[in-house]
Amino acid sequence: MAFNMVADHAKWPMANDPIFGLAAKAKEAIDKYGKENVIDSTLGALVDDEGNLICLNTVYNELKSMPNAAIAAYAQVAGQPDFLEAVQKVCFGKYKPDAHIRVVATPGGTGSVRHGIWNYTNPGDSILVSDWYWSPYVTISEEFNRKVTNYELFDDKNEFNIASFKEKFEELLNKQKRLVTVINTPANNPTGYSLSDEEWDEVLNIAKENAKDPENKIIILVDCAYIDYAGTGDERRKFFKKFSNLPENIFVLVAYSMSKGYTMYGMRSGAAIGISSNKDIADEFFYSCMHSNRANWSNGTRAAMEVLTRIANDPEKTKAYEDELYETKTMLKKRAEAFVNGAKEVGLDILPYRDGFFVTIPCENAKKASDELTKENLFVIALKKGLRFAVCAVSEEKCRTAPAKIKEVLERV
Amino acid sequence: MAFNMVADHAKWPMANDPIFGLAAKAKEAIDKYGKENVIDSTLGALVDDEGNLICLNTVYNELKSMPNAAIAAYAQVAGQPDFLEAVQKVCFGKYKPDAHIRVVATPGGTGSVRHGIWNYTNPGDSILVSDWYWSPYVTISEEFNRKVTNYELFDDKNEFNIASFKEKFEELLNKQKRLVTVINTPANNPTGYSLSDEEWDEVLNIAKENAKDPENKIIILVDCAYIDYAGTGDERRKFFKKFSNLPENIFVLVAYSMSKGYTMYGMRSGAAIGISSNKDIADEFFYSCMHSNRANWSNGTRAAMEVLTRIANDPEKTKAYEDELYETKTMLKKRAEAFVNGAKEVGLDILPYRDGFFVTIPCENAKKASDELTKENLFVIALKKGLRFAVCAVSEEKCRTAPAKIKEVLERV
Repeated sequence: MAFNMVADHAKWPMANDPIFGLAAKAKEAIDKYGKENVIDSTLGALVDDEGNLICLNTVYNELKSMPNAAIAAYAQVAGQPDFLEAVQKVCFGKYKPDAHIRVVATPGGTGSVRHGIWNYTNPGDSILVSDWYWSPYVTISEEFNRKVTNYELFDDKNEFNIASFKEKFEELLNKQKRLVTVINTPANNPTGYSLSDEEWDEVLNIAKENAKDPENKIIILVDCAYIDYAGTGDERRKFFKKFSNLPENIFVLVAYSMSKGYTMYGMRSGAAIGISSNKDIADEFFYSCMHSNRANWSNGTRAAMEVLTRIANDPEKTKAYEDELYETKTMLKKRAEAFVNGAKEVGLDILPYRDGFFVTIPCENAKKASDELTKENLFVIALKKGLRFAVCAVSEEKCRTAPAKIKEVLERV
Repeated sequence: MAFNMVADHAKWPMANDPIFGLAAKAKEAIDKYGKENVIDSTLGALVDDEGNLICLNTVYNELKSMPNAAIAAYAQVAGQPDFLEAVQKVCFGKYKPDAHIRVVATPGGTGSVRHGIWNYTNPGDSILVSDWYWSPYVTISEEFNRKVTNYELFDDKNEFNIASFKEKFEELLNKQKRLVTVINTPANNPTGYSLSDEEWDEVLNIAKENAKDPENKIIILVDCAYIDYAGTGDERRKFFKKFSNLPENIFVLVAYSMSKGYTMYGMRSGAAIGISSNKDIADEFFYSCMHSNRANWSNGTRAAMEVLTRIANDPEKTKAYEDELYETKTMLKKRAEAFVNGAKEVGLDILPYRDGFFVTIPCENAKKASDELTKENLFVIALKKGLRFAVCAVSEEKCRTAPAKIKEVLERV
């Protein structure tokens, strides 16, 4: 190209999303060979065994019976006040931290992660993320001239690598005196790993130790997009309580998403929940993110906020919604178990799965392996160091048989 | 506050939106004195004579009869391909420019304006906006460390002040060699002014003259949020055709919004439409904005895109929608005429109104005037240099009587 019109910082490769490309190929294969002969594990959304997107009835009945004006009206810039209350109830459950908490509505979890990175780092700063990460963390960071440093998520025993976390955490914090670390738990995308409560204690101990230097500003950004599919009861929410009474220079930002738990991916709703032991720090967060809301998308999707609020504030609706969600969660668990057991039976190495939509198979040459699997009508996303299999998108039966196919192909590439 | 956790660039005043504050006061007055005794002209949304938000039936019937999966699924990062086509038809009508055109879906018009400012300027740059402007242009600019320079919108004859535009345009362009100018037309917020086709020619002639220097990069950002309430037929869309065959270093970005035309304010949908005579420049725009989409909100509200596409691609639905919109537009026109005539009768000075939701009364001491009017149960937004009266929110009858009240109060403050 002869010249550019965009500013230098806004030049990006002319590349389309590879996931959508592979998903399109999977659709072609289904048309050609029939649904029963294709395993399409590309997209990160829950589908039923027939391949149809699961849309919770309790959610969509609520949406469609709502007065038009509740959908049409602008929401307030920071979000509807009743939503900002209700979303805390839904996110924390019984484990709301003893702290000053302020909330701002955002489009999905992405909007919250973006606010955390933009508002709590300076240009050129590095954020800290594990080496198995959701790739938009990099997209967000590079968009704003921030960098990403990785620690190793797993140690030799396939447990949370606290030593690697500590090393990178302190290295960056000593250099920058300010650090945003994104912890994607429970149900990490792409591995399905969830930090245990003990691992959370270790993380917070490192943070507290480093918070003794009052010049250090530590921001823990918890991306809990998949929390509604984690654990069996509410045990995967217990860690929230640990954010009580932290030192003032540890700020916690929880990125909450309605996309998965409410099957409202396309409605773009979530929340940035700021937690501090200092009221002023929580208020500062609120006004900073409200300014960012106004400057980026003005205000959030009103209808989605209304759905969450109406369900959360009505015990009968809450029960019906939770029952429906539980059924879906159980289906997902069975699929994941089928895949994990299938992998064990054939000796396919996978990363430790605990919860959520994805299982990851570590391997060299992931791109080549994915291409080869495509020829076998098994569609799986290639990551830098492995393959992401979406149990959310594949029936239990196919989850059981897929590991053998993957193993076979991995042995020859 | 003892210390900050946010980065320096992200500290903003702890202030809430003044418009919502005044709207809340208006609601209190209605509860106390009765609907008939209060004129609430605060919010920028169309309401009927009873004060209820207008929600087009053709739009909401479409939304509510849609399969849940069409609402629930993620949209593609750049927007659904059929939406990206249909929105051009809807925006340009018969006047699609002869040019390379690429489109990216955004949350409302705000998302497009944000993309234009972020991607086409550098930190510290000034964008150019008239002195009667929608205040989020400043919010967006300051969020990203950009500045705003104003030209005078009107000259002594109350016509578009092309001399002032030229002076500031060339001053900034000579300094920066790159300039984004936002032109909010037709139906400027807050004045209701629309550039005539002749005024557009003058603007484009200035741009073309300056484009002779190949080092200059000129970006014209047309915010046409209110276009569906402008003119009687499609005469207010004619200017789009003028964006045909422009020099390569003039790039046009049209910020299109579904908020008003589809009465879908709360659904957050719009589009950034990039227009260039050079295919590479149009493609560069697309990939730059797609990256920004992914990095800020991931993807847009799928249901809103579906509504626009389903209506635009079905001639019967298009006709029903346009008929309903026309009725609403006619109601709005009558209200505006009533206000303009009422102002003339009592000798109240107003800025030249052509189209749209707002009329502006220029005055000193606008804040004081608004406060005084509040005591008379007339709620109107104070701008820096005048009062914004929302004819979209007030019945025809009240639009007729309001000018006398305003005149009376202005004479004593």
